[in-house]
Amino acid sequence: MSSLRKVTETTVRRLSIYYRVLQKVLESGDQQISSEQLAELSRASSAQVRRDLASIGNYGVRGHGYDAESLKDRIAAVLGVDRDWRAVVVGAGRLGSALTSYREFRSQRFQIIALFDSDPSKVGLMADGCVIRPAQELVEYLRAEDVAIGIITTPPSAAQGVADALVAGGVRGILNFAPATIHVPAAIRVRTVNLTFELEGLTFAITEENNGGDFSGFEAA
Amino acid sequence: MSSLRKVTETTVRRLSIYYRVLQKVLESGDQQISSEQLAELSRASSAQVRRDLASIGNYGVRGHGYDAESLKDRIAAVLGVDRDWRAVVVGAGRLGSALTSYREFRSQRFQIIALFDSDPSKVGLMADGCVIRPAQELVEYLRAEDVAIGIITTPPSAAQGVADALVAGGVRGILNFAPATIHVPAAIRVRTVNLTFELEGLTFAITEENNGGDFSGFEAA
Repeated sequence: MSSLRKVTETTVRRLSIYYRVLQKVLESGDQQISSEQLAELSRASSAQVRRDLASIGNYGVRGHGYDAESLKDRIAAVLGVDRDWRAVVVGAGRLGSALTSYREFRSQRFQIIALFDSDPSKVGLMADGCVIRPAQELVEYLRAEDVAIGIITTPPSAAQGVADALVAGGVRGILNFAPATIHVPAAIRVRTVNLTFELEGLTFAITEENNGGDFSGFEAA
Repeated sequence: MSSLRKVTETTVRRLSIYYRVLQKVLESGDQQISSEQLAELSRASSAQVRRDLASIGNYGVRGHGYDAESLKDRIAAVLGVDRDWRAVVVGAGRLGSALTSYREFRSQRFQIIALFDSDPSKVGLMADGCVIRPAQELVEYLRAEDVAIGIITTPPSAAQGVADALVAGGVRGILNFAPATIHVPAAIRVRTVNLTFELEGLTFAITEENNGGDFSGFEAA
């Protein structure tokens, strides 16, 4: 769909915000929403909202705004959250355990169905209803359970080996929390969350020299 | 510094990457680096590297490239990581505990010096060398210890109250992991990390309809 080629990462981030705003609007009983209302509730400009929604093929009707239900459904389809996703976490340290039990994932359509670790002393322990499985069973498990997403929360030195196993097991995307660059075939999508980079983004913004700079997106919820 | 007004969030992200590449280059004994080398090691284009570095006032010398040490120092100053930062975590659940013990923060110049929770049954317990303190002492503690950064890992319903206390205690920036919008005075910088949005960024990229789209920045390490 050629109109989607313009959808940038910052637009995707705002689509996630619009999606939640629309869920709340619908819960409150409203059916129509103007770009101005959606903008205010999303802390964006209405011009930005119109551009973002035009980029996914949605055009409001002048004077009527958007139909909230169909817009929510369209955004869900673009984000891929109109279906369930099965994921595994590899690395049963504190961060891996925290993600496995993360309530917000559960309330959306992400199911973390297993947690893996290479440390034999952790294997068999329970982490929030998930038994910790041995890393050497990862590939076989992924294939058997048709898992689409792998989440890496290992130390950096283990990340590439885990990525290779995730690819061998057939995942389509990897969310990488390990502070290491991983190399995968082009068809596999990788998204890296580097928590230290997030802190550095904040200290950049705090640092006085930069005040007054253009931090577009920094305050998006 | 007017040249900094162009520094966007994606440039800041790449500066974090360049910074680590330069650290490794210097450890290996090299003093000079070309934009091509820096680009290859950072998985960016050399034109992008030159643009990013020009935006923070650094211009390589044609045929000589960049002096690695002074470039690293310049990036550190822009990111604000040429000094130590004291932070507290509020919300001693799994994610808060994981962040408190996060090794990568410790290896950079971020010190998490305390962990707070409103649950009396958690107060006094230890989480990785940090004793969990009562939330009602937060403001007083922040003022006494001159803490610049607050990290929110509470449930969404508690996030605004915690943000208010952090502001009252004098923090300059907030890293918010709670899936809630928080409102703070304009002088306080807020950076939100929404882990569900990160997964949605990944499912967007995986979703077949979008393949071939422009995912600039998605694969940055």
